[in-house]
Amino acid sequence: MLRLNCDLGESFGAWTMGMDAMVMPHIDQANIACGFHAGDPVVMQQTLALAKQHGVMVGAHPGYHDLVGFGRRSMNCQPHEIEALLMYQVSALDGMARVQGMELEYVKPHGALYNDMMANEGVRAAIMGAIASYHRPLVLMLQATPQAELHREEAERKGIKLWFEAFADRCYDDDGRLLARTRTGAVHSRERMLEQVQQLAEEQTVTTVSGHRLSLSVDTLCVHGDNAEGVAAIEAIREAIS
Amino acid sequence: MLRLNCDLGESFGAWTMGMDAMVMPHIDQANIACGFHAGDPVVMQQTLALAKQHGVMVGAHPGYHDLVGFGRRSMNCQPHEIEALLMYQVSALDGMARVQGMELEYVKPHGALYNDMMANEGVRAAIMGAIASYHRPLVLMLQATPQAELHREEAERKGIKLWFEAFADRCYDDDGRLLARTRTGAVHSRERMLEQVQQLAEEQTVTTVSGHRLSLSVDTLCVHGDNAEGVAAIEAIREAIS
Amino acid sequence: MLRLNCDLGESFGAWTMGMDAMVMPHIDQANIACGFHAGDPVVMQQTLALAKQHGVMVGAHPGYHDLVGFGRRSMNCQPHEIEALLMYQVSALDGMARVQGMELEYVKPHGALYNDMMANEGVRAAIMGAIASYHRPLVLMLQATPQAELHREEAERKGIKLWFEAFADRCYDDDGRLLARTRTGAVHSRERMLEQVQQLAEEQTVTTVSGHRLSLSVDTLCVHGDNAEGVAAIEAIREAIS
Amino acid sequence: MLRLNCDLGESFGAWTMGMDAMVMPHIDQANIACGFHAGDPVVMQQTLALAKQHGVMVGAHPGYHDLVGFGRRSMNCQPHEIEALLMYQVSALDGMARVQGMELEYVKPHGALYNDMMANEGVRAAIMGAIASYHRPLVLMLQATPQAELHREEAERKGIKLWFEAFADRCYDDDGRLLARTRTGAVHSRERMLEQVQQLAEEQTVTTVSGHRLSLSVDTLCVHGDNAEGVAAIEAIREAIS
Repeated sequence: MLRLNCDLGESFGAWTMGMDAMVMPHIDQANIACGFHAGDPVVMQQTLALAKQHGVMVGAHPGYHDLVGFGRRSMNCQPHEIEALLMYQVSALDGMARVQGMELEYVKPHGALYNDMMANEGVRAAIMGAIASYHRPLVLMLQATPQAELHREEAERKGIKLWFEAFADRCYDDDGRLLARTRTGAVHSRERMLEQVQQLAEEQTVTTVSGHRLSLSVDTLCVHGDNAEGVAAIEAIREAIS
Repeated sequence: MLRLNCDLGESFGAWTMGMDAMVMPHIDQANIACGFHAGDPVVMQQTLALAKQHGVMVGAHPGYHDLVGFGRRSMNCQPHEIEALLMYQVSALDGMARVQGMELEYVKPHGALYNDMMANEGVRAAIMGAIASYHRPLVLMLQATPQAELHREEAERKGIKLWFEAFADRCYDDDGRLLARTRTGAVHSRERMLEQVQQLAEEQTVTTVSGHRLSLSVDTLCVHGDNAEGVAAIEAIREAIS
Repeated sequence: MLRLNCDLGESFGAWTMGMDAMVMPHIDQANIACGFHAGDPVVMQQTLALAKQHGVMVGAHPGYHDLVGFGRRSMNCQPHEIEALLMYQVSALDGMARVQGMELEYVKPHGALYNDMMANEGVRAAIMGAIASYHRPLVLMLQATPQAELHREEAERKGIKLWFEAFADRCYDDDGRLLARTRTGAVHSRERMLEQVQQLAEEQTVTTVSGHRLSLSVDTLCVHGDNAEGVAAIEAIREAIS
Repeated sequence: MLRLNCDLGESFGAWTMGMDAMVMPHIDQANIACGFHAGDPVVMQQTLALAKQHGVMVGAHPGYHDLVGFGRRSMNCQPHEIEALLMYQVSALDGMARVQGMELEYVKPHGALYNDMMANEGVRAAIMGAIASYHRPLVLMLQATPQAELHREEAERKGIKLWFEAFADRCYDDDGRLLARTRTGAVHSRERMLEQVQQLAEEQTVTTVSGHRLSLSVDTLCVHGDNAEGVAAIEAIREAIS
């Protein structure tokens, strides 16, 4: 069964982002920001409490230490720096979760760190290594691509488990990458999105921009709760896969 | 038996502070900065590894979020903000310690947060509450004063344990407070420091600025490893209490 | 003639705050955040450009270095630290304004720094000293209170000019302070607000919570543009004093 | 005549870096950090005062906003972000300099921003554009390389002036790049350094790693004052070129 995951807890201090209270009832997995690109200790506590209230599984959503850039700008970090910043953020959220009687179950890197992980074997090795060294088992969530088998082998060597995610509303190219947002048709209409979701749920495939069917073995769908439209889309997706 | 505790891991990025490698062999308890006033994820990992190598007990040394002020400037935080920032920092360090096979055993607030804790019942309650809510038992380290009984009662109500610390090199006034650094005789000579340490170890008393003997029940002595002189003092204190 | 001033440029990175584009056409003076409690270099440039487009006078709105607390938490800074942080923020905004062909005309401290300035002579002296030392004349904007004469004398000694502001929507007590927000009647209804504005414009007085008439010599009114209601209030005030 | 430039003002809060007071008497140009990768408002004021005392020309040394990485990690910023962060830092330092009766004369980007400027035309254009738009003329200091003519043309189109710097203690390859620090012979002995300095001063050439003579038109030499050895080298270089 496909799960729905969403980035939450992205407010910071006096600044609010996302409609977390509207989204939480409809998702399965909350990717919670850990203070480096978004989130602060108070926001993290509140987001954990909200997840608990709705029985939502919690994961860490660590990013580069770039608050003003919201973790969206790649930083040329060394592997040991990536391991350390991941470990710090994961530990902070995990401890705060356990105080509320929950446990982190997975890690999904954020923004540029996520992109660098998908594109760069060294970054991926640092992230997998950090997760493997954690004192409890944690799953790494990453993008479902035609390289999934390679990623699975890498993870196996480190002794960690992977969850693959697809994007409900994004068009894929024939290589299994997301079409750049600047391209026409990069973001699906509501109707196309729901078709893609159902096809993923039933056949584990997507239809690419050129009309090919591409195999994508997917554990979870990434959805967005930034605004009312996003929340409505989440409800529609939930219904489509139930 | 008196233990020796020292603030360590206070480097940050490219900036080095403290002679951690020289100090660690001579102390019992390392108070490790957690990234808000000093320390960064890489420094924290290295400091934990150094503590492990020397079999030194580790504690969290959380501070206000004021890097440029080194956590030495009081900030008018709300109790729930103090609880959250404490929980975040303690969790981050604890997780990183467990990855290295260690566990945090205590929390000693840093700088202005420590001073506010000693002076302000609300801040103390927030700190004790946060520690009490942690998912594992942690001891709170605070200053030994004539109010120790009150503090013990507060801690008992929260269900947490306290360790009291005294300062080896600082002169006490008759109320059991440290003489302000601006006052003559506020910081002891090497000889007077060693006398104070021995008196604390043997009689659990200090001789105040006016010559009175004041009872101070002490579990641990705070020592400083900022420079070569401090390291030499630590070695002398260690010898004096062995 | 009464001017209207408003805090603007309080977005930060990916986080938006305030309806700046809606507010700017209706005000005379834009208090622009300078990056320590809100605002970032890109936001500052955009806010300056918006002010220029509408012919609005620009002032610096510097705060304590506390992003997560939005500069609302008092920090126990030394006078030389306050001078330096003020000078840094004012200089940054001033240089960016001149690049766009504008010049800062005044400084209005933000949040806790503003409150500390009103309550604490030492903080006020540090702020006035910093402004007096600036290489161009800048006016200090502060709250109109019964202590205005004292503040005017302090400013004269430093050789700087003051502008006094009143709050359109807040109820005053008999000592000329704002009634705490927790008190009933602390924030005026739309109708009472417009009455207070007109009374300030015509008689330079306010009617206090107990019904007394209190003299307040006022140069500018502080208005708020956080939401649609605030923007509507600004338009109504503008009409009332035209 | 060759000038000597040095990165100064790199302390931050409680952390000290560099022997600024020892270096300042021997140099011509102080590249002063502006708070994003090092330096804070108090440190900036002190460094400016020290430069004034010794009659040293001051320049801004802006970096990426990466304190923990000391601005040494490349960040994938957009051109408008680079322009804004440069303008902010330059303005802050310039205003503080003018308060002390000085004026910034040049800008030398720091660390990864410097490297990105040398390697990437888009970054260089953003930096030159920001400097060109400043309300007073500022010179851009960059590395003397065989591409100097190209850089001069780019600068001319923007209407700004360039100063080229060479490195006293680093070995050059045949393409005029610095030999990577990991290579044998990358950093010169004291004797070789002084030879390189004299050759630069007399012939405007360097002898590369393979023994070729490479033309380098140089305005200023970058020297380092991190420790006593560096300070001694500066004194020797000063004597060699006098």
